[in-house]
Amino acid sequence: MKNSKKVVVFDTTLRDGEQTPSISITPSNKLEIAMELDKLGVNIIEAGSPITSKGEREAIKQIVNQNLNAEICSFVRSLPLDIDKALECNVDSVHIVIPTSEIHMKYKLKKSKEEIVESALKSIEYAKEHGLIVELSAEDATRSDPEFLIKLFKTAEEYHIDRACICDTVGILTPDKSSLLVKKIVENIKTPLSIHCHDDFGMATANTVAGINAGAKECHVTVNGLGERAGNAPIDEVVMTLDKLYNIKSDIVHSQLSKTSRLISKLVKVPIPANKSIVGENAFSHEAGIHVDGLIKNTSTYEPILPEEVGNNRKIILGKHSGKSALKYKLSLMNIGLNNKEFNQVYDKVKAYGDLGKYISDIDLKTIISEIKGVNIAKKVYLDELTVISGNKVTPLASINLKFAEDYNPGGVDSFELSDLSNSFDLEDSTNIRKRGDDRKISKDLKLDNIREAAYGVGPVDAAINAVRKALTGVADIELEGYTVKAVSSGTDALIEVIVNLRRGNEVVEVKKAHSDIIEASVEALMDGINLLL
Amino acid sequence: MKNSKKVVVFDTTLRDGEQTPSISITPSNKLEIAMELDKLGVNIIEAGSPITSKGEREAIKQIVNQNLNAEICSFVRSLPLDIDKALECNVDSVHIVIPTSEIHMKYKLKKSKEEIVESALKSIEYAKEHGLIVELSAEDATRSDPEFLIKLFKTAEEYHIDRACICDTVGILTPDKSSLLVKKIVENIKTPLSIHCHDDFGMATANTVAGINAGAKECHVTVNGLGERAGNAPIDEVVMTLDKLYNIKSDIVHSQLSKTSRLISKLVKVPIPANKSIVGENAFSHEAGIHVDGLIKNTSTYEPILPEEVGNNRKIILGKHSGKSALKYKLSLMNIGLNNKEFNQVYDKVKAYGDLGKYISDIDLKTIISEIKGVNIAKKVYLDELTVISGNKVTPLASINLKFAEDYNPGGVDSFELSDLSNSFDLEDSTNIRKRGDDRKISKDLKLDNIREAAYGVGPVDAAINAVRKALTGVADIELEGYTVKAVSSGTDALIEVIVNLRRGNEVVEVKKAHSDIIEASVEALMDGINLLL
Repeated sequence: MKNSKKVVVFDTTLRDGEQTPSISITPSNKLEIAMELDKLGVNIIEAGSPITSKGEREAIKQIVNQNLNAEICSFVRSLPLDIDKALECNVDSVHIVIPTSEIHMKYKLKKSKEEIVESALKSIEYAKEHGLIVELSAEDATRSDPEFLIKLFKTAEEYHIDRACICDTVGILTPDKSSLLVKKIVENIKTPLSIHCHDDFGMATANTVAGINAGAKECHVTVNGLGERAGNAPIDEVVMTLDKLYNIKSDIVHSQLSKTSRLISKLVKVPIPANKSIVGENAFSHEAGIHVDGLIKNTSTYEPILPEEVGNNRKIILGKHSGKSALKYKLSLMNIGLNNKEFNQVYDKVKAYGDLGKYISDIDLKTIISEIKGVNIAKKVYLDELTVISGNKVTPLASINLKFAEDYNPGGVDSFELSDLSNSFDLEDSTNIRKRGDDRKISKDLKLDNIREAAYGVGPVDAAINAVRKALTGVADIELEGYTVKAVSSGTDALIEVIVNLRRGNEVVEVKKAHSDIIEASVEALMDGINLLL
Repeated sequence: MKNSKKVVVFDTTLRDGEQTPSISITPSNKLEIAMELDKLGVNIIEAGSPITSKGEREAIKQIVNQNLNAEICSFVRSLPLDIDKALECNVDSVHIVIPTSEIHMKYKLKKSKEEIVESALKSIEYAKEHGLIVELSAEDATRSDPEFLIKLFKTAEEYHIDRACICDTVGILTPDKSSLLVKKIVENIKTPLSIHCHDDFGMATANTVAGINAGAKECHVTVNGLGERAGNAPIDEVVMTLDKLYNIKSDIVHSQLSKTSRLISKLVKVPIPANKSIVGENAFSHEAGIHVDGLIKNTSTYEPILPEEVGNNRKIILGKHSGKSALKYKLSLMNIGLNNKEFNQVYDKVKAYGDLGKYISDIDLKTIISEIKGVNIAKKVYLDELTVISGNKVTPLASINLKFAEDYNPGGVDSFELSDLSNSFDLEDSTNIRKRGDDRKISKDLKLDNIREAAYGVGPVDAAINAVRKALTGVADIELEGYTVKAVSSGTDALIEVIVNLRRGNEVVEVKKAHSDIIEASVEALMDGINLLL
């Protein structure tokens, strides 16, 4: 809490996040996450549990060594050994956790109340003697006797704890009960109270917010609601709810929320659900006609906050629920002009596609328009042939043959025979198997309407994409910015959906393609995107 | 509400769910979803918006024709045309939606309060005259003047509405405000009140539950929280919270919740987040040592409800946070006995793997044990060679060479040369390219420690898996029950994770494998699974 200036203190518990079943975080990922959390403005980072292992202690030390603005905290049980291990890591604070409910004391620890309190007090004393900031957490507090909690915290105050915390360990709190419990405790103790909520019934955010509103000064949260079982309260929801609906401020940088969410999702390999509030891909996406119509007139009709405020984006999606104003808006974004008759024809087609249960992507819309206008505005480059060979004893390789539409002159090809370009060939580039200059001579032999290429890669998809990229270098300055794979059904013959993001200058397109052959899906998506941009 | 006997009425709004950006539902999927919702016990199904399109009306009619137990409802605007279209579909009820907030009336509809109320009353009258059950919804009610809402509902009561509904259209409600607003309205009207909440701040469940607790009799929910932007309140959370934390009952069949969630996820192609409460894969998964330890002693230490109650499963995961009791528990589940020294060695290795950020699967654990025991309990069949050719002008094909461990006698191979097996070859089987009998002669020539095979498929992965399957038919009676692909990072050289589920008799294994080559990942996972089962 070194530089805290506002009302709520955010403690991101990296330890809880790491306890998400089946995820794995390497020490270097952990360091990157801690640095990102510091940039986000969190006040306390619970970096880990030093008793877990040697590797864990090394990871915590590395975080401590960064001299971040955030206070670095360690989880410890009320055992001197655990505190010694925390001291070894040079953390600022310890989070001493003791069970306080009958069920946890009796079944898990098999100790009496008195024994547990005594060990807690000894640990607090030991930690304070060694200069640590101490937060005392009551595990399963929401199933504990409130009088016992108050007595425990009051006794611990005599041992100079810095913060007390109540944990809703199995997520059984309701906002009402959270509010009542927090009020009762803060009326009786002097120490700032913290609240730690789990999402087993889907109410971690509401319970955390209710606790803060009732007088708790700090909350434990995780990014993307990661954590054991259904996870912990997600930082983005708690921050934005407190700010927008309760006017309670924090040090968190709102505009950083989506970026942090995406980075951590990538590092821990847990996707962000599309319909995740605040930071999800759909949080500011609109399809329904009446929604888009209202939105165009005034965004606050269907958006409680602006997407840019949390670093997210607005999207307008076409489908069977889309109205005419959504189509008009979309066409204006794509800079396409249609007369009234054409517009109505396009609108009817969009609705008909929607009825078939089809999602209408940008390229689908362009195809519909080109059909109705009777002109081929779509394909400039065709994939004529693709062959891929891979296996565990061969380097994956792909050959392709691209053809250009008759009326299309790929002006860039000539420039490729300039010696400066073949000289600029980067020998380190693993995607090339022959020198660029040689390749161009081949494509010249095949005339301008044809480019053949071959490339290798780390796998068959990589090889195929590399071959297309090589073929088009110099023809079109298109960059592959993103490539994502998603299985849309199960089975070895399942549809695989590939999403490709391409950029040419300032223009950006996203193409989705589903196919049971991942290589074909990838190359087709790439070709569609290239045609959209050419 | 035909057969409702309990306190809360659940209205699953298929229309809201369908408005999830980018998803697509075919009419036959829609029918399947409605039938599943009926089995789940929902009281009302809002099947769609008949004005949307002809296809939408056909889909609604098909649902009506099933004579489900649930009331079938249609969304309509307060326009006679919309109601006519609903009547055409023979629905039981209409959900007439009118905006009631200043911002919606002024910016979206550009109409006065009086005009809006007048059109609503006319529509109610028209609908009632035609025998429809009428629910009147106030859109953006939570940003509307409560006095206006009461006046509107009281006037509408004179026109005999059956239900009134308040919509938190942009998700800005808090549990406190939900409770106050509902109390104020139910004190002033006689008609049962319904509540419809959105999840923009992550509080849709808490707001819905607070409203029901304050006196609302019905709630609008969706499966998996699907819906526009961040979605609507998810049915599983609202049902279980009301039942377990408020003792408010419903007609919903709890044990069906996970199955319905999975079916709808599959049909609409929107994955269920692993950390989704109640129905998510991790909702009852445990890794942390203290958690697993407590759980083994008494599940209620770390689980608020039993997973079987909602049709979900408990999982114990090994990783760096795992304690000795978790390992012991896991070994007992896998029926593996170790002496003390071996146990400690295995435990140390598990922790060391965890430190490297590695997730420890069942096969990893078996490999660790075999290394420590100094015996090779792992591999019986090896993939010696795999070659795959695919492309847009070739039928994807794969050849493999499998080798058996020297001490392993694949007893089944001989039986393959029996003529009855070659006779049993199914000509319809697309995975075979040569008759079985021929293949076996080849494997005989290569001796029993070697099987070569070739197969084609719809894509390269399918071809490779088909080749392995063909090679092992008769050698081991292993079935491929599940195959799922997940991209764990982005880029064409990204890691692709393949999850394979295999069965041999009653034994089931799940193997995860990540590789940048999807074909190799698939075949490796398959081989690992086969070795686990042999």
